[in-house]
Amino acid sequence: MRVLGVDPGLTRCGLGVVDSEPSRRVQMVAFGIATSPPDDTVDRRLAAVADAIGAWIERYRPDALAVERVFAQHNAYTVSGTMQVAGLAMVEAARRGVEVALHTPTEVKAAVTGNGDAPKDQVARMVTRLLGLSEPPRPADAADALALAICHAWRPSTLSPTGQAATAAQKAWVEAARAARRGRKTWVTA
Amino acid sequence: MRVLGVDPGLTRCGLGVVDSEPSRRVQMVAFGIATSPPDDTVDRRLAAVADAIGAWIERYRPDALAVERVFAQHNAYTVSGTMQVAGLAMVEAARRGVEVALHTPTEVKAAVTGNGDAPKDQVARMVTRLLGLSEPPRPADAADALALAICHAWRPSTLSPTGQAATAAQKAWVEAARAARRGRKTWVTA
Repeated sequence: MRVLGVDPGLTRCGLGVVDSEPSRRVQMVAFGIATSPPDDTVDRRLAAVADAIGAWIERYRPDALAVERVFAQHNAYTVSGTMQVAGLAMVEAARRGVEVALHTPTEVKAAVTGNGDAPKDQVARMVTRLLGLSEPPRPADAADALALAICHAWRPSTLSPTGQAATAAQKAWVEAARAARRGRKTWVTA
Repeated sequence: MRVLGVDPGLTRCGLGVVDSEPSRRVQMVAFGIATSPPDDTVDRRLAAVADAIGAWIERYRPDALAVERVFAQHNAYTVSGTMQVAGLAMVEAARRGVEVALHTPTEVKAAVTGNGDAPKDQVARMVTRLLGLSEPPRPADAADALALAICHAWRPSTLSPTGQAATAAQKAWVEAARAARRGRKTWVTA
């Protein structure tokens, strides 16, 4: 299956496309960022990022779009742009009939490193290794988008009809998802 | 000038169109709400509301779209849907070349009642009176959208080249806008 990961942001929106095989092998298809000029009006900036996400969907025809679940707790200004881009990404996908999934940063970290509290650079190193890249994808937003795509490709429901988590990383994924549902831990994207 | 006011919301998004004359007389053109089925997925709900806003822009061809400025402080779940719909409304307008403006609830209340702290029912009563309606627009989200449209039509920059506020309501508007810029008072839409 092909997944487009979106790490939402108004100034830099990370985008990453990954193909996954039933064997859990993942392959990098493309990564990059959508940007908008900081001196433009907010409505035009949002439209520019939404158009770019739409163009990526058209170009790479993913089976699913995975977006980071954004929580509004700190820094209202930054979060509002982030949250609005997340909403726009969902609509760009919905209008093209592409399935949408949201994953928390905890779920993403747990999926790729086995540790829901892993630091950002560890996530980038694992993304590099899992995709067989020679160096970490830059900028960091693109690496985060690839991690989101991998997280979605590896979500437990694709593993077995019984939902059994086969590896340590998948067990951590399930744990993180449970914790997020209980609201025990929330993360802020800023 | 014709203004489409949008009171953003995922379950009920208020919409109100107002024409204003240079004399400050305002006339109701249309009001209503966009809704989305609560049992559908969030991406499809967001797309349904965005499509409805786009259809209103196409139908009423406003000169400007005024959206309530949403602040993220309480109730993250409700605010995120509200904030995402606000972003979608901005993009629907930007893609059609329609000017976008954001107004805080304090500005809207001050514009239509002269008091930035006015209760909701007083705002609805003033909207009813200003538009010469026989009864308050229902639901309340539609009345709020009309208030937003009136607020934008009456914004001080349309009054005189010097930006002088001519009436008590306009003075209150300017004061509320200043207070909002200083961050002295913020409002939460929930």
